[in-house]
Amino acid sequence: MADIPAGWEARGKPPTLFRRFSFERYSETRAFLDALAVLSEEAGLHPQNINFASTYVNITLEPGESGELGEAELGLAERINAQYSRPKG
Amino acid sequence: MADIPAGWEARGKPPTLFRRFSFERYSETRAFLDALAVLSEEAGLHPQNINFASTYVNITLEPGESGELGEAELGLAERINAQYSRPKG
Repeated sequence: MADIPAGWEARGKPPTLFRRFSFERYSETRAFLDALAVLSEEAGLHPQNINFASTYVNITLEPGESGELGEAELGLAERINAQYSRPKG
Repeated sequence: MADIPAGWEARGKPPTLFRRFSFERYSETRAFLDALAVLSEEAGLHPQNINFASTYVNITLEPGESGELGEAELGLAERINAQYSRPKG
């Protein structure tokens, strides 16, 4: 398997990818959720499990039918990271 | 306390309101999430804990500073219900 993107953690069997994203305020959380919906759509991977409140978003990505985390999941994790670390303001 | 809106369950101490909403497909889930964001904004209550995947959304509403579920939370729960039960198509 390719390297796990920064900040993500492989968990469980079958393996899942997990990362928690924190924000200063709800408006940022909301903008991130909207961007996430677009990225998921582009990747053709519906969000598999997302838990959020005002200032955080926890994302779990699960493997597809192969049962293994593949390029699709890892690529999406990378793109989510890029969205999170964008310059502010 | 006023009556708990249909389908919601009071849980725990301090009390929270919980309901699970199910959908046939992700596009419906997504539309519901978008509507939920608007309703929360209008109510001035940021979503307190929301867990979703392709075909469900679990919502937990927590009491505000009073520590009691009040009109604000119950009213939002009612409006979320109205959004869910809207005629399709």
